[in-house]
Amino acid sequence: FYSSGVRKCTLIPGDGIGPEISAAVQKIFAAAKVPVEWESVDVTPVRGPDGKFGIPQAAIDSVNKNKVGLKGPLMTPVGKGHRSLNLALRKEFNLYANVRPCKSLEGYKTLYDHVDVVTIRENTEGEYSGIEHEIVDGVVQSIKLITEDASRRVAEFAFQFTKENNRQKVTAVHKANIMRMSDGLFLRCCRDTAEKFPDVKFEEKYLDTVCLNMVQDPTQYDVLVMPNLYGDILSDMCAGLVGGLGLTPSGNIGLNGALFESVHGTAPDIAGQDKANPTALLLSAVMMLKYMGLTEHAKKIENACYDTIKEGKYLTGDLGGKAKCSEFTNEICSKIA
Amino acid sequence: FYSSGVRKCTLIPGDGIGPEISAAVQKIFAAAKVPVEWESVDVTPVRGPDGKFGIPQAAIDSVNKNKVGLKGPLMTPVGKGHRSLNLALRKEFNLYANVRPCKSLEGYKTLYDHVDVVTIRENTEGEYSGIEHEIVDGVVQSIKLITEDASRRVAEFAFQFTKENNRQKVTAVHKANIMRMSDGLFLRCCRDTAEKFPDVKFEEKYLDTVCLNMVQDPTQYDVLVMPNLYGDILSDMCAGLVGGLGLTPSGNIGLNGALFESVHGTAPDIAGQDKANPTALLLSAVMMLKYMGLTEHAKKIENACYDTIKEGKYLTGDLGGKAKCSEFTNEICSKIA
Ligand SMILES: CC(C)[C@H](C(=O)O)[C@@H](O)C(=O)O
Ligand SMILES: CC(C)[C@H](C(=O)O)[C@@H](O)C(=O)O
Repeated sequence: FYSSGVRKCTLIPGDGIGPEISAAVQKIFAAAKVPVEWESVDVTPVRGPDGKFGIPQAAIDSVNKNKVGLKGPLMTPVGKGHRSLNLALRKEFNLYANVRPCKSLEGYKTLYDHVDVVTIRENTEGEYSGIEHEIVDGVVQSIKLITEDASRRVAEFAFQFTKENNRQKVTAVHKANIMRMSDGLFLRCCRDTAEKFPDVKFEEKYLDTVCLNMVQDPTQYDVLVMPNLYGDILSDMCAGLVGGLGLTPSGNIGLNGALFESVHGTAPDIAGQDKANPTALLLSAVMMLKYMGLTEHAKKIENACYDTIKEGKYLTGDLGGKAKCSEFTNEICSKIA
Repeated sequence: FYSSGVRKCTLIPGDGIGPEISAAVQKIFAAAKVPVEWESVDVTPVRGPDGKFGIPQAAIDSVNKNKVGLKGPLMTPVGKGHRSLNLALRKEFNLYANVRPCKSLEGYKTLYDHVDVVTIRENTEGEYSGIEHEIVDGVVQSIKLITEDASRRVAEFAFQFTKENNRQKVTAVHKANIMRMSDGLFLRCCRDTAEKFPDVKFEEKYLDTVCLNMVQDPTQYDVLVMPNLYGDILSDMCAGLVGGLGLTPSGNIGLNGALFESVHGTAPDIAGQDKANPTALLLSAVMMLKYMGLTEHAKKIENACYDTIKEGKYLTGDLGGKAKCSEFTNEICSKIA
């Protein structure tokens, strides 16, 4: 029926609970008749011809060909030479914008109600440049790299995203009072971009102020855009407001494709026991569908997931329930059907 | 009576509401018969012989002589050449550790109960080095500088502080998974120091994880030590949990002296109207007294302040009350008497 429109998506199931929650997403996609065919790949680093470890070529080719991928949690190999695989993937595919919506879930009570913020994080440079030197013994410098190109690109993405999603306001988060040149450049790019989007409100706030305000009243924020490290911090903090990383999705958007991922850990303690909560990965998959233009399927799955949590009959252990991952998954599937 | 032991303290009343809340502190100190004589100084930058603006020599001399100072909020002069005066003072006196306790106040309800954390922030380097370059047009680097000396110094301060205050645990906050060399060095210094304090528990946490955990359950933390910027962020966030910067004190500790300050703004909108809340500056002054060894006076004032807030009859506008600054102040004075 859908065959003419079937599209391939790369799937990186990941480590620990990754395979279980990936299987849950696949099952739900099948129930919702999503016209997507999965191409599973392994990203365990392999030693290349140059002797260095890297992502296997087959995985790289798959993402480059399919342009969209879904990724479970990955373990970072232990040992000095290995940087995070998550970071390696962001770099490999030039995934310049990291989008993390944090929304209060009805039925899962936290201290905060009505949270609905989206952090948009510059994902390629900043404090994550990886450039560090030990100048003399005991004196180290790390370089934060801010470029006009990357700042403008993520600022434009943030405003475009805000507009397309009928949101109201973009807050640029910075410490340009301290890092006048680097954060100053980032801020200037945001200001310039704001002028091109007269319908979107724009404000600038210090990072420390945002942190303070966010824990007091998150409803004052909408979409926030910021350099890499600030996004790492704020996105986790916002996830905390609505229940943690097990409930919040994430999308890494690039020029030539996008990778959606749950950003929680591999939870080795419960791996393989049918106990994991697939919500973060499922909502990431929903973001992927929206990105692909499959809005109807996205909404159907999203609503079934929200309703299941709201009803509270089949909650996994992390949400205070007793359901297995498979029971939670089946409930979503039956809501879809 | 106390005269033989009277000690001089420098007072920098500050801008905006600064003079009112400083006067409140002076009044309360007088009521508590604190053996302290104030030496008020003006820190408005003046043009030096080299043509550059700087802190007036008289102010510098006063702090260097007295070794302790109390400071209200300062406006940063507008204009490209001026860096924050707050920062200039930290630099001038080599105030290497910034201590910010955040404690839930009985009687002032927030979303969180029983918060009792202290952030200890490296205060002289890190992302605040001030070293930045535009390498080519549109490409800026800011240098984060981490030294073994400064890291060790603040780590030792944190453990010593924890021990002296009968606290249990130090958490080192870092992103050594990303900034392996700089945060790695900081972390190593904390680990080394931990070994010298076997009675104090020690743990290491990623900054993003701490932000997430902190908004979910702040009671899992006690004393936290971290590089400069992380401290800027976390201290504001923690202040948010207990009611904001109007309620939390701050002390900057140096090798040759210490400067205690409220870190809220100058609140020009209510300046001169007897509406400001002096709590943050008063609790900073209490920290100063403890630092000076005047523990009895410190406790007396602290309790009177806590009790006044707890009773709730004389709360200023920011706390939802209608009392004037002077009424709140008088209530504290009469509790002391
Ligand atoms: C795993 C780690 C390298 C990563 C980061 O610091 O960006 C994580 O915290 C995230 O937010 O995706
Ligand atoms: C005023 C500003 C320069 C300062 C800082 O960034 O350190 C402030 O936020 C603080 O925490 O004292």
